[in-house]
Amino acid sequence: LKNNIVDLFVNPKSVAVIGASKNPTKGGHRITNNLVSNKFKGKIYPINPNSEGKLFGLEFKKSVLEIEDEIDLAIFYVPNQIIPNILEECIKKGIKGALIEASGFEEVGKKGLELRDQILKITDNFSKIRILGPNCMGISRIDRDSDIESDTMGGFFTSFAVFDNYTRGNVAVISQSGMLNGGYFMHIMEKYPDLGFRYSCSVGNKMDLSEIEFLEYFIDDPTVNVIAIYLESFKDPRKFIELCKKAKSVLNKTIILVKGGVTTQGQKASLSHTGALAENSQLIDAIVKQSGVIKAKNFFELFQFARTFSIMYKTGKKMPKHGNVAMISGSGGAGTVSADLAIQYGLNFPVLKEKAYKILVGLFPEWMPPNKFALVDIWPTMEKAMMNNVSRGVVMNSIYEALLNEDHIEGILNMMFCSERFQNMRIFDDIVENIRIASKPVFFWLIGEAREILKASRLLEKYNILHFQSLEDMIKNFGILVQESKNKNKNKN
Amino acid sequence: LKNNIVDLFVNPKSVAVIGASKNPTKGGHRITNNLVSNKFKGKIYPINPNSEGKLFGLEFKKSVLEIEDEIDLAIFYVPNQIIPNILEECIKKGIKGALIEASGFEEVGKKGLELRDQILKITDNFSKIRILGPNCMGISRIDRDSDIESDTMGGFFTSFAVFDNYTRGNVAVISQSGMLNGGYFMHIMEKYPDLGFRYSCSVGNKMDLSEIEFLEYFIDDPTVNVIAIYLESFKDPRKFIELCKKAKSVLNKTIILVKGGVTTQGQKASLSHTGALAENSQLIDAIVKQSGVIKAKNFFELFQFARTFSIMYKTGKKMPKHGNVAMISGSGGAGTVSADLAIQYGLNFPVLKEKAYKILVGLFPEWMPPNKFALVDIWPTMEKAMMNNVSRGVVMNSIYEALLNEDHIEGILNMMFCSERFQNMRIFDDIVENIRIASKPVFFWLIGEAREILKASRLLEKYNILHFQSLEDMIKNFGILVQESKNKNKNKN
Repeated sequence: LKNNIVDLFVNPKSVAVIGASKNPTKGGHRITNNLVSNKFKGKIYPINPNSEGKLFGLEFKKSVLEIEDEIDLAIFYVPNQIIPNILEECIKKGIKGALIEASGFEEVGKKGLELRDQILKITDNFSKIRILGPNCMGISRIDRDSDIESDTMGGFFTSFAVFDNYTRGNVAVISQSGMLNGGYFMHIMEKYPDLGFRYSCSVGNKMDLSEIEFLEYFIDDPTVNVIAIYLESFKDPRKFIELCKKAKSVLNKTIILVKGGVTTQGQKASLSHTGALAENSQLIDAIVKQSGVIKAKNFFELFQFARTFSIMYKTGKKMPKHGNVAMISGSGGAGTVSADLAIQYGLNFPVLKEKAYKILVGLFPEWMPPNKFALVDIWPTMEKAMMNNVSRGVVMNSIYEALLNEDHIEGILNMMFCSERFQNMRIFDDIVENIRIASKPVFFWLIGEAREILKASRLLEKYNILHFQSLEDMIKNFGILVQESKNKNKNKN
Repeated sequence: LKNNIVDLFVNPKSVAVIGASKNPTKGGHRITNNLVSNKFKGKIYPINPNSEGKLFGLEFKKSVLEIEDEIDLAIFYVPNQIIPNILEECIKKGIKGALIEASGFEEVGKKGLELRDQILKITDNFSKIRILGPNCMGISRIDRDSDIESDTMGGFFTSFAVFDNYTRGNVAVISQSGMLNGGYFMHIMEKYPDLGFRYSCSVGNKMDLSEIEFLEYFIDDPTVNVIAIYLESFKDPRKFIELCKKAKSVLNKTIILVKGGVTTQGQKASLSHTGALAENSQLIDAIVKQSGVIKAKNFFELFQFARTFSIMYKTGKKMPKHGNVAMISGSGGAGTVSADLAIQYGLNFPVLKEKAYKILVGLFPEWMPPNKFALVDIWPTMEKAMMNNVSRGVVMNSIYEALLNEDHIEGILNMMFCSERFQNMRIFDDIVENIRIASKPVFFWLIGEAREILKASRLLEKYNILHFQSLEDMIKNFGILVQESKNKNKNKN
């Protein structure tokens, strides 16, 4: 990978933890713990002038200057005021990178700005040492799922939140909020068992390194398909746009962005959070538009979209290009609302070709013929199947087959009622394998009994089939696939 | 209650089930089952010319004409073609209402329209018998939670979906989609254990009775605070607007509406669902605007909003009027995004008065002073508390007290990280009682470990404290309270 400086931060050979401590309530303790327990394969040196003995079997040093080996990266978890002095020692030692998690810099006004100026001087504008942060939660690199027993390492975790439950996948996060490499990051991995990550990088105040270097690195990294970004400010809008445009011509690469600090109130909050300065909201709109990224409105959308693209890339399903989709629903009302929502998200239910329509006519009762367009209210077919003692799974499979065989239909949206009484798990067993091997994406909206929904979710996740909690989420997520196809195509011409 | 005809449908003294059957796959079987097992206190007569003996201990009759007692309501679950003949018998018997669940009328075109014309003639334009439906899923009236052991009845359930798990509450549903008195209705009651219902009425094709009669009834009914409506067409827009305006001056009454069939594609779907004819989308907008109802975009929003108002009315919390709200978050990034979302939903984080600010300054560490405005990133206070061995619950309570005592702050939004390690349940134990007795609403957004979220949810539900799955949902739902206050106020002047 080209960007050597990012490689130093996400893949160092040796690290010093400045502020390592035996006290488990201290961040420096938890950072060391994360490195050790997740089997970081490089060398780890706990640094604390006030500590004696060992931490997790590693001997404390008073200063980085006591270390004999070469050190790639120093991770700081000490109060802001003492950072400049220690940074001078790091430079003296020849350490190339400093990851500073402490806060109390640009975001707290005058005093913090003075500290920043001191650091600029000491580092000679970051030419002597590169800095990530301050005011961040560090980096996670996931090499292996946390629940896989193995001698090889789980990855590289420098957050001061404790990491012990994670899944490797094809998503990389770049964030100006620490929680995306802390509590919220863990929350997302619990919430979506089918969503795995490769990296999460909290960039904090972006005193030196910013979204730019990480974005460049992840665009080049073939293990990353989806780049999920949260920013409160753009460090270099022109370069950001250029990189996003470049990503459009890279196969299997999608960038999703949430921008915080769009309103005056949001900018006030952002200033007190990461010291980010207000950007004109028109400028923000222009950057988003020109970069052609997928825009998410909030963290929920950011990770939901990330999951959708992640699984699309992972399974190699064909991306829909035109928005022609079929809907299978168990309710006419849901069908009507879906039809409205589909329009809103750039999708449509096309008219069925003769062949598919004929198959459907055979499955529907005489008193209730099917629609001519690709919105199938299956309730009458299920009722007919029950009356005639025909397996509902077989009927469902025939409907899927008919719709998936239509060339102009690019995928299927499915409302599924999960109920023990209606034995939908049996229907699922009949259909999941066919859906898994289909080249077109099939999305599910699961409703019904909580326990049955959970069972169905786990089954679908096993087969890498996407499911959603709301009708609108399902439709919106199919819509962004079409949007991304159009973006990528635009870039080609 | 004034509307006698609706009373006949939701609260009949005796019913005949036309199409009752011993075969459990038939709708007529399940309807009878619903009536019996949920302890409908009136008389039930199963009608089927082809059945002998008894069903759930009730003797089959060949026809309603065989019944000696007076019958209030006939519930039809038989094929569309035979309905006109049986309807003539019902008129002869003096039955006042017919609830027709069968489909195959307006929504299937020519044949169905002929049937409708036959019914119009037989009933002399519904002067001889009133009709609910056809193509609907009937009515639910919930008198008592399903899990309360009691000799008194659970309620009155006429859906052909099986009802055995429900909660009584202050919400009434009027719906042009059967699933809101079927699978989706059950789904919602499982999804929100803190949301209870009083009625759900599926109006289907609205051949005779429509949303109008039910709306009027529920506005008058003091057991109903929230009316959640799904419509594909307006039967009488002028009357609808008039009733909604009337509701504005009724204490503790809120109407929420989802309109399906807004786009051309949606209208096509709606036509094939309930035979509803396309309305101009400008007309729809005008009706919604003039009626001053809370508009929901989809079913998910409809019931989420219903739950929010339901609990606000149930607990008697003070409705926010101006949108001045405080936010407690554990992450600066979430704070920034919240600030943006708040603006979008008409809320703002006001500047703190001296008294509250001073309290916060005491709780924050020196290196990280609090904001001057009502956006509190509590992480530094928690860290300080841990360092000094102070109970975090006590610190949280002080923050709540400071914010709730500010006259101009109308409520609190709270991001809560649920983690076994951080023992948030202990914090909850300290704060829930104070939140419960506060006159201002406090909303939670719960993130973290799935099991801990569930625990926290159950605890909050016990105390009738609202919690949400996403940041945007939490903010949006506070926003609609302000919107409703403004609507109600507008009507006063």
